[in-house]
Amino acid sequence: MSEELVSRKELSFQLYEVLDTEALCERERFSEHNKDTFDAVMDTADKIAREKFAPHNRKADLNEPTFDGENVHMIPEVKEAFDTYAESGLIAGRFDFEDGGMQLPETIMMACAGYFMAANPSSTGYSFLTVAAANVIKNFASQALKEKFMPRMLTGEFTGTMALTEPHAGSSLADITTNAKPNEDGSYRIKGSKMFISAGDHQLSNNIVHLVLAKIQGAPAGVKGISLFVVPKFRLDENGEPAERNDVSLAGLIHKMGYRGTTSTVLSFGEKDDCHGYLVGEEHQGLKYMFLMMNEARLGVGFGAAMVGYAGYRYSLAYAKERTQGRVAPHNKPTDKAATIIQHGDVKRMLLAQKSYVEGGMALCFYAARLVDELHTLESPEAKQRTAELLDLLTPVVKAWPSEFGPKANDLAIQILGGSGYTREYPVEQCWRDNRLNPIHEGTNGIQALDLMTRKLWQANGSGLVQLQKMMSEDFAKAQHQASKRLIADLQPYLAKLQKLIPVIGAELKGENQNSLLANASCFLTIFGQIVVSWMWIRQAITAEAALNGGSLSSDDEAFYRGKLQAAKYFIDWELTVTDRDFKILNSMNDSCSNMQEAWF
Amino acid sequence: MSEELVSRKELSFQLYEVLDTEALCERERFSEHNKDTFDAVMDTADKIAREKFAPHNRKADLNEPTFDGENVHMIPEVKEAFDTYAESGLIAGRFDFEDGGMQLPETIMMACAGYFMAANPSSTGYSFLTVAAANVIKNFASQALKEKFMPRMLTGEFTGTMALTEPHAGSSLADITTNAKPNEDGSYRIKGSKMFISAGDHQLSNNIVHLVLAKIQGAPAGVKGISLFVVPKFRLDENGEPAERNDVSLAGLIHKMGYRGTTSTVLSFGEKDDCHGYLVGEEHQGLKYMFLMMNEARLGVGFGAAMVGYAGYRYSLAYAKERTQGRVAPHNKPTDKAATIIQHGDVKRMLLAQKSYVEGGMALCFYAARLVDELHTLESPEAKQRTAELLDLLTPVVKAWPSEFGPKANDLAIQILGGSGYTREYPVEQCWRDNRLNPIHEGTNGIQALDLMTRKLWQANGSGLVQLQKMMSEDFAKAQHQASKRLIADLQPYLAKLQKLIPVIGAELKGENQNSLLANASCFLTIFGQIVVSWMWIRQAITAEAALNGGSLSSDDEAFYRGKLQAAKYFIDWELTVTDRDFKILNSMNDSCSNMQEAWF
Repeated sequence: MSEELVSRKELSFQLYEVLDTEALCERERFSEHNKDTFDAVMDTADKIAREKFAPHNRKADLNEPTFDGENVHMIPEVKEAFDTYAESGLIAGRFDFEDGGMQLPETIMMACAGYFMAANPSSTGYSFLTVAAANVIKNFASQALKEKFMPRMLTGEFTGTMALTEPHAGSSLADITTNAKPNEDGSYRIKGSKMFISAGDHQLSNNIVHLVLAKIQGAPAGVKGISLFVVPKFRLDENGEPAERNDVSLAGLIHKMGYRGTTSTVLSFGEKDDCHGYLVGEEHQGLKYMFLMMNEARLGVGFGAAMVGYAGYRYSLAYAKERTQGRVAPHNKPTDKAATIIQHGDVKRMLLAQKSYVEGGMALCFYAARLVDELHTLESPEAKQRTAELLDLLTPVVKAWPSEFGPKANDLAIQILGGSGYTREYPVEQCWRDNRLNPIHEGTNGIQALDLMTRKLWQANGSGLVQLQKMMSEDFAKAQHQASKRLIADLQPYLAKLQKLIPVIGAELKGENQNSLLANASCFLTIFGQIVVSWMWIRQAITAEAALNGGSLSSDDEAFYRGKLQAAKYFIDWELTVTDRDFKILNSMNDSCSNMQEAWF
Repeated sequence: MSEELVSRKELSFQLYEVLDTEALCERERFSEHNKDTFDAVMDTADKIAREKFAPHNRKADLNEPTFDGENVHMIPEVKEAFDTYAESGLIAGRFDFEDGGMQLPETIMMACAGYFMAANPSSTGYSFLTVAAANVIKNFASQALKEKFMPRMLTGEFTGTMALTEPHAGSSLADITTNAKPNEDGSYRIKGSKMFISAGDHQLSNNIVHLVLAKIQGAPAGVKGISLFVVPKFRLDENGEPAERNDVSLAGLIHKMGYRGTTSTVLSFGEKDDCHGYLVGEEHQGLKYMFLMMNEARLGVGFGAAMVGYAGYRYSLAYAKERTQGRVAPHNKPTDKAATIIQHGDVKRMLLAQKSYVEGGMALCFYAARLVDELHTLESPEAKQRTAELLDLLTPVVKAWPSEFGPKANDLAIQILGGSGYTREYPVEQCWRDNRLNPIHEGTNGIQALDLMTRKLWQANGSGLVQLQKMMSEDFAKAQHQASKRLIADLQPYLAKLQKLIPVIGAELKGENQNSLLANASCFLTIFGQIVVSWMWIRQAITAEAALNGGSLSSDDEAFYRGKLQAAKYFIDWELTVTDRDFKILNSMNDSCSNMQEAWF
């Protein structure tokens, strides 16, 4: 319905006005770039996403990959899209010039990703997983291993996966049983079964590079005994060409409710005891390495959730402007012309809620991407350290918040379309089904809540939180105008309540209410998430209000900025305030959940 | 996973312990029944649902009906299920003995429906729509029309539909354009197009009886000009047998995201100007008649949503008792045995939330069904009137509340199953997809909110509300023990706030904040819904606590009652308290939504 997949005005606002991404060009790493090169790469992403990804989004959903016992088959459009993406150089976009990359900021690569996630999240999966896997190899593998695999991954000749989960071990990686026995040549024989491995098999590339978590014989129990291996589908010959088939096989495809275009696989490693794997870095350090990929993946999941939410928002917005139904006062007579549904208050509410979720989620993810860029380019070790701590603290929120509110946005989009939204003739139901994966994978949102409340909050003596407060205060000091100042004033009591709550949690985490606290962790994630996203909205409001007060604007621009202010107000009034409940629960150490007994259900 | 589709213990608790359904047998209408006949009919429903409906629930989802241009085809299991249902006499269950019915209370018929909705909502659709259509004919059609159609509908030889929506008119029935021209023989020629007509075509029955809303030539504009017609697929010959094809044809099937087994159709009436329709009752009274069906359908939608929610709850509960993952203090060592996930606090929370939603929703629907039974059997016109007013007031809540919280329960069930929940190998994703229809059809939940806040609340000078308060007070006076008393005390401040809010709304509905109020109607529905369901949970808590204090219980029974008390506590602590936000929004006449402008999105 809408011509643009993603509003460029929106992206420019987030990137250049709110985040000042151009300033990154002053850093040495990005010194060969400027706003024009950034815009050019976004133009490329936009064009490929529109031309090669969006057109088969529904077709890939209706025709999911099949397995004939030998090979995986999928509609040809997926390969065409993948090839075009690879040829554009985008896989290597964030990598160093010396690795054949474009050395682009994470912030800009995320904006590019936005086009693809809005167009077709499942066909996007193959290249995005390859980027993430190549990055782990770059950072932790030996030079020899890196040379063998990374260059070919960056061109898309090889693709990558992350193979963590096993049928009995998902959230609890401590319990994986896939094992590795050393061969004489320094390689290992891998044996085990992995499940829910996205892009685990297909015919899109000449080789598939699995990053596999496994335990070397005699390793310590639990997560401390996990190592990371490169396990290719085809072993490489002396020229580095894919040759002999490695003993990793597709046991079956998993049939998902959404995200159907990305194969989800059960993989068997070493059924013939001949699966070669190559250790990445040191023994028993695998989980640490994998967490680089996982943390990046968590930002990617959050952003994808925001963008699939955004796609639904934009569709329902266009629909609400065209669809007529009923009447709006004072034109209430049956003989009056019917109103477009966007004029009905409840539809406005559902659109404004969506806007606040998806643009708030985008702002959050861009902020995190900017922290990654800072981390890669800051010179002072102290500043780097503070940035890392803030990013660590925010990561569970960046993963969980948009993956909770993106699907909520999609749900509202369905509701706006009504009966039509419930049919497969319209795209919003697929958005919802695709998006429903995001609260589950890369650590369920329940795991994120625990990670935040029991670990990240206290890491490095809570210095992430100190840094967060400092950043907020600096931002709030920039507010010059009334509306933004009002929003900040409305947020303050919640910040004060959070300030009081944190030491209570700290004390109780080791105290007698520990079980209640753990059962209520989702409330803490809600509080923290709503406050952080309120901050993101205030940042946008300050920028928008400054523009509104800064001189003459086109009527489109004025409307854009007014919309930002209104959405910020909505978010603080309607969404921040839901945390009153969560504060109550946590402050009272409510035991309704923890006291529930299995037999009572 | 679980043997029972629906816990009989749960049904017995709701029906006999909380509602004292047995007392209905003292009324003349039900005097030939007793607990044994009630239980026997529930046994029948349970058996048919388990044997004939549940087994093909997934198959019907994977193999939705197809249309070859002539006929609709579906998997044979649907017809077998429909026939078995019809043969059992359940279609006529609530109808009078003299009509060939079993003259059973609505409450008991609803309990029976629960088995079918939990087993397979989409195959259930065909018979349930037939019951509703037959009931309209019984109540409003002429004796001649009634004799022709109703008996054959009650045996399932004919099926029924409700044909209201048109492509351009869904929520706004005032705008329908389907028209009716009188024939000389007293019948009408119908012309128009209807959309989203469930069960609008199929091969399950010898005839399909459409109840069609249309406007007779020269009728007043808007809803005051709508009449109701019986339009059969096949006209009846002089012996009442289906003979000549009527000019109503299937223009196409609609492909839904869920509820796939029930055909959703676009129907063309009178393409050859030869579609015969028979007026039901009087001219221009059609919407009033249809509202009988609609109000019943609204109870049915609410109950169906609760039961599909219940099916997901039960599945995720069984899964959580078996699936092991991670560890629970004090057994935290990697060498300790993994815990079943039901031991994790956040999983307990998600199960308890589901329990509170689905059992709360069931209690609400049974309460409404009981009001229907009262309405049919009370002798005093005043008591009847009061009951009708209370039922009217509650109807939007009974429709909207479970249809909001049933899908929420399903969403939590998916989350508990994690990656598995996202696959089509497990039933919970289908529950979610099926249930997502319920907030949309029979009046979207946005429409319900407006209906409640702007109409039902004020109907008959607000006497529905007076009656509601009276019923609540009578219930609260029954609390004898501490836990229930505590719950009532916790609810009181919310009742007081509601009491204060209502006159504010009354004043503002005609005042300058009207637009803000309409945009915030969903907040009022939330407040009203959470308070009413809190009451439903308190009713259950009072009953459970009395049982716990009433003498020796088996350990199973004790666990059951403790679970009820705990779920009631959870609901009041966690779910009622979310309304703090909604009170804030309404009391401040928040204008965030109403002030949003189309151009600002």
